[in-house]
Amino acid sequence: MKILKLTIIITFLYNNLNICKDNMNIVEQNLNKFNLTLPQVSIPVANYVPFVQTDKLIFISGQLPMENGKLKYAGKVDKDISLEDAKLAAQLCALNILAQVKTCVGSFDKIKRCIKLTGFVNAPEGFAAHPQIINGASDLLVNLLGEKGKHARAAVGASSLPLNAAVEIEAIFEIE
Amino acid sequence: MKILKLTIIITFLYNNLNICKDNMNIVEQNLNKFNLTLPQVSIPVANYVPFVQTDKLIFISGQLPMENGKLKYAGKVDKDISLEDAKLAAQLCALNILAQVKTCVGSFDKIKRCIKLTGFVNAPEGFAAHPQIINGASDLLVNLLGEKGKHARAAVGASSLPLNAAVEIEAIFEIE
Amino acid sequence: MKILKLTIIITFLYNNLNICKDNMNIVEQNLNKFNLTLPQVSIPVANYVPFVQTDKLIFISGQLPMENGKLKYAGKVDKDISLEDAKLAAQLCALNILAQVKTCVGSFDKIKRCIKLTGFVNAPEGFAAHPQIINGASDLLVNLLGEKGKHARAAVGASSLPLNAAVEIEAIFEIE
Repeated sequence: MKILKLTIIITFLYNNLNICKDNMNIVEQNLNKFNLTLPQVSIPVANYVPFVQTDKLIFISGQLPMENGKLKYAGKVDKDISLEDAKLAAQLCALNILAQVKTCVGSFDKIKRCIKLTGFVNAPEGFAAHPQIINGASDLLVNLLGEKGKHARAAVGASSLPLNAAVEIEAIFEIE
Repeated sequence: MKILKLTIIITFLYNNLNICKDNMNIVEQNLNKFNLTLPQVSIPVANYVPFVQTDKLIFISGQLPMENGKLKYAGKVDKDISLEDAKLAAQLCALNILAQVKTCVGSFDKIKRCIKLTGFVNAPEGFAAHPQIINGASDLLVNLLGEKGKHARAAVGASSLPLNAAVEIEAIFEIE
Repeated sequence: MKILKLTIIITFLYNNLNICKDNMNIVEQNLNKFNLTLPQVSIPVANYVPFVQTDKLIFISGQLPMENGKLKYAGKVDKDISLEDAKLAAQLCALNILAQVKTCVGSFDKIKRCIKLTGFVNAPEGFAAHPQIINGASDLLVNLLGEKGKHARAAVGASSLPLNAAVEIEAIFEIE
């Protein structure tokens, strides 16, 4: 009888630890599923920090589409760079945001949700498709984080962006 | 003596319940006073949500001047669209913001205050009257919410905006 | 024995009050060190307020490079105004932000930290040096506030700004 109880407890613990392990890795699993890797976190070239945590909110500095320390997508959208590439630029900004969040809190399973994105598109006058571009970031967050990835958002046009980047995105996250 | 006390208590409760009722409706009363109606809330066309609440803060996604599901004010301010119409566009953005707040919390009397507006004006180079345009939103909030409507604000020029909208405004509200 | 205890307590209090006094004045001391003075706080010309405090966060309205109630740096950066002057414009925006923070909380020693800056640069198409310009503000905050001055940041280009200002910066601060 005691052995049975012990077996049940051990099985219970084993299953739950497994669930925990699965939960902890779901974002990494999803990254693999979509053939994506987190970029190395970009170190700000200027006198500011990549994120600031206050209580349960994390403010992430505006992220550019950087990969291996280099800007991957530059120029004015729909002129120097296609809509498809601009959407990939937004996706890469979001990957950089996630890399910063992970650096800040250590593990993706501490994310309660993504609160807000503000997406700036390096766009010419009369451009109107900002939402489609910034969807590159929003879709990624929902694909990777599920319900926790659903955020409030503003998407606007910028006359120019740092390093002539095609897109810049800043974010606010809430942690558990 | 007991009856007198009871009468006082009942009168007190009745008056206060009335005050409560009046408070609940003051924003709706003000909407009527200014001949305004809340637009139907716009459903985001993209993979994000119109608002996210975290603790007592509500982050409202950037709202365009939409009415009955259609963009009412498009184009570059002071070129395609007059300053007066641009101010009405800002007012309509604010009405959409209030409609989202109401959808989020159910009743206007749960609003503690409007914390912050960020107003983006689709403006040509050298344009300088952003404050007057965004006043269309700020005046509305103060007219409808009184002291609770007074907010911090930034107003800036955007080279372009989603759907070629004349104005886009995002907001942060605090609830009780 | 009692006198010894009393002396220790008085010495302890005296030293700590001194430490307090030093802390209270360190930002003012740094302002003097860098030959800077806080500008008079600008009163918003429109129907909004210069700051809103919610719990421990203060949202500061977008500040322009104002001195003695007048705009000091106008025009498009790298066209009408040099990069050096634009950086000074960003510094002046940050001084206006600090003046608003002080008006809000009374003393600089209540600042826990600067959470976030959003810097808008009145920049022509293809401009890429926004970080260097907004460093005028970031460097100032770190020079004056030390570790407490380190913030998250976004820097973007605006097609135009209120009063044709060269720079506009908004901020979020956390207080103790």
